[in-house]
Amino acid sequence: MPPLKPIFDHIDKRFHQHLEKVRTFVRQPSISGEGTGMAEMAELVAGAILELGGRSEIVPTSGWPVVYGEINAGKPRTLLLYGMYDVQPVVGEDWIVPPFGGEIVDYEGRGLCLVNRGATNQKGPLAGMFNALESVKAVTGGLPVNVKFMIEGEEELGSRHLPEFVNRHRDRLAADGTYFGVFSQNAKGKPILYLGVKGIVFFELVSRGGAWGGPTTRGIHGSQGAWIASPVWRMLHAMATMTEPDERIAIEGFYDNVKPPEAEDEKLLSDLAKTFDPELVLRENDVRRFRYDLAGADLLRRYLFEPILNIDGIAGGHYGAGSKTLLPHEVRAKMHFRLVPDMEPQEVRSKFLAHLEKIGCGDFEAHFEEGYPWAVMSPSAPISQAMIRAIRAFDLEPQVWPNIGGSAPFYLFSRVLKQPFTMGGLGHGGRVHSPNEFAVVDGIRLYEKSVVQFLYEFAGIRE
Amino acid sequence: MPPLKPIFDHIDKRFHQHLEKVRTFVRQPSISGEGTGMAEMAELVAGAILELGGRSEIVPTSGWPVVYGEINAGKPRTLLLYGMYDVQPVVGEDWIVPPFGGEIVDYEGRGLCLVNRGATNQKGPLAGMFNALESVKAVTGGLPVNVKFMIEGEEELGSRHLPEFVNRHRDRLAADGTYFGVFSQNAKGKPILYLGVKGIVFFELVSRGGAWGGPTTRGIHGSQGAWIASPVWRMLHAMATMTEPDERIAIEGFYDNVKPPEAEDEKLLSDLAKTFDPELVLRENDVRRFRYDLAGADLLRRYLFEPILNIDGIAGGHYGAGSKTLLPHEVRAKMHFRLVPDMEPQEVRSKFLAHLEKIGCGDFEAHFEEGYPWAVMSPSAPISQAMIRAIRAFDLEPQVWPNIGGSAPFYLFSRVLKQPFTMGGLGHGGRVHSPNEFAVVDGIRLYEKSVVQFLYEFAGIRE
Repeated sequence: MPPLKPIFDHIDKRFHQHLEKVRTFVRQPSISGEGTGMAEMAELVAGAILELGGRSEIVPTSGWPVVYGEINAGKPRTLLLYGMYDVQPVVGEDWIVPPFGGEIVDYEGRGLCLVNRGATNQKGPLAGMFNALESVKAVTGGLPVNVKFMIEGEEELGSRHLPEFVNRHRDRLAADGTYFGVFSQNAKGKPILYLGVKGIVFFELVSRGGAWGGPTTRGIHGSQGAWIASPVWRMLHAMATMTEPDERIAIEGFYDNVKPPEAEDEKLLSDLAKTFDPELVLRENDVRRFRYDLAGADLLRRYLFEPILNIDGIAGGHYGAGSKTLLPHEVRAKMHFRLVPDMEPQEVRSKFLAHLEKIGCGDFEAHFEEGYPWAVMSPSAPISQAMIRAIRAFDLEPQVWPNIGGSAPFYLFSRVLKQPFTMGGLGHGGRVHSPNEFAVVDGIRLYEKSVVQFLYEFAGIRE
Repeated sequence: MPPLKPIFDHIDKRFHQHLEKVRTFVRQPSISGEGTGMAEMAELVAGAILELGGRSEIVPTSGWPVVYGEINAGKPRTLLLYGMYDVQPVVGEDWIVPPFGGEIVDYEGRGLCLVNRGATNQKGPLAGMFNALESVKAVTGGLPVNVKFMIEGEEELGSRHLPEFVNRHRDRLAADGTYFGVFSQNAKGKPILYLGVKGIVFFELVSRGGAWGGPTTRGIHGSQGAWIASPVWRMLHAMATMTEPDERIAIEGFYDNVKPPEAEDEKLLSDLAKTFDPELVLRENDVRRFRYDLAGADLLRRYLFEPILNIDGIAGGHYGAGSKTLLPHEVRAKMHFRLVPDMEPQEVRSKFLAHLEKIGCGDFEAHFEEGYPWAVMSPSAPISQAMIRAIRAFDLEPQVWPNIGGSAPFYLFSRVLKQPFTMGGLGHGGRVHSPNEFAVVDGIRLYEKSVVQFLYEFAGIRE
């Protein structure tokens, strides 16, 4: 491996311009759930690939397009760079700065931070990756690996049409591995390496009046509740059958295919427990206690190896200002399951629908969005080892997790493209999906260097 | 009693102007829950009293003011005219005309209708009452009774500060009875006479993260639901303990003071069952079936003699467009109890709070608004008989109900002012608290005549 210091020096020297690139990326709203700014953002990403001397294309899908790109460096190995250009909505959130203002403030004692929707999830790392590639090219005149880009616009919608895209373009996407760049350091600076992701199944559940009773087309006067049934009470009683009070899922056979952690997983869990700081999780999430009176590996096992049924939101009837005596005609709950090995989305949907039938609510509407299964890599896989080496090059020891509680469609890499994958990078950010999402500015610089390091580590893999 | 035909002829001749007065009243938004147009509406009402040669005053309360007025006709008997100048919100509703446009359209085969928020509940009847008084004065030069006015602006908020007003102004409000004007004919033209009202207790229930767990200050990433508790699941499980699946209230001791119907009530119920048309209730509310497989007096007994716990609305987390994986930090439910004899608001509040404690949810916030108890009159009371005679004068036989499922603060008349009360009047309207609230135009004319008739019937009572 060549000495990388000249490249790191370039990053330091050019960091002002690099940061401006990140700010340009995050200032452009790109809210896939609303359709705000999506075309403009795709253009920005495609343009960044062109600036690096690559070819890029905004490829239509049945949903938001995917930005595809290639830079052929004439090297033996190829890395697929996966990313996302969409972000979560900000409606109803209270921010200390405009959520798309690209403002840099000293945020709650963390030092200078970029506070903006997408600063960490995931346009900050995306722009930083372009800065890293720019630096390698500027200093060395080339890249250590060929790169391909697949930057999707529907990650926050559960990557609805990415399967369609990947299945259609398997040949173009062929590579020796996939990398997803993230700011992986926690608030104490510890880099976290997640070896996998949970699967997810989004759906909206709707209870409304119909043949069974209840108002069918509009809310009616609340006094009618004395003899006309309430779709809201029916929904609440139905939902209460779906979980125990401790939130364990009470759907028949739901845990049948939940695979207990294997020996290798248990080893990771007990290693992890040594440096894992539960207080930090609580503090970062503004939470006083976990749902379980457990610690260490036992707590982690629950978090990482169990499925959940989450309520993202619920709404029905009158919830504006003032009182309104109303018997609502419908109520909607947005929910999602998280899937662990070896659960499959279709199986979860079927069991959920069977549960609705069983409790006499087969007439509820359950609008399922495209979901996807879990994906995990072994810690001993060469790509995992390349990432671990890249982090250690900065005198940091990664904390390795068997998976993350969250979800990403990495099964497309492991199962469909049959490529190993990894996600990582230095840097720190937080409040993802929340008001005041932030990325520490100095962390962005470190992230860029860690991406460079990883590119070279990956280039050096001999399989 | 003098012949009333000249007064009725005056109403017919002046009906165009009368209708314009009604339209002026309903066009003025007066949404107490939002604070829209309240001062303007109070001025309109006070002005209408002045136009009749009375004295009027907009009297401040701790909430929206009450319009008080008097017309001393030098007669032995005095009637207190109670009414409301506020209306329900229209936010989120889909109307065929602007909700405050005062438009007259042939609405779904009912003939010409005034379609407007408040057309029936209750600014249509309120304006019609002024038209009736104008007609009596124009033709006879006076009125058969002295009248007092108490027109409140918080009926739709549960008449929060009317108790304060009534207690402060008992002397000014002294009268021989109270009258509340309503369009009492159903869709088939049958006049309905309700002898009483249920009580009501509004509250908002809030579940949020705290010492027990859950996110405390903001929604967090939904994947955290694997080890952090959900205030929404907690709320749903808590609410599901408050009612049985058939919506019977499952709070300990809740039915202890529910008085079974007495012999006089049972007589009314069986009379009522003879002309009561359950299909009409279903049709008017767009409902396919009642909650109970009951008919006639048995169905009516449930409706009229049982308390309810209604969910007016519920909201928490993300319920805008698109998916958002979120573990919400709070959820709010707007609810209300309806009270029947002999329940008291304070008793209901206490039992509800005890239930929260019992299920381990004593930390929930329960924001109670001012509520009030039930109030009922005997069918044999002279004021009830005056109303029955007024209706029969139009060759119509009223259908007499022991109470209505809805609520109004009439305990202020029966318990505080110790006056008999009645509510009624001809005319037809509907879709109260819903989009496309309407009043049949010809019904308004008939209403005005029935009010005139009632004034003379009431004047003739010898007690």
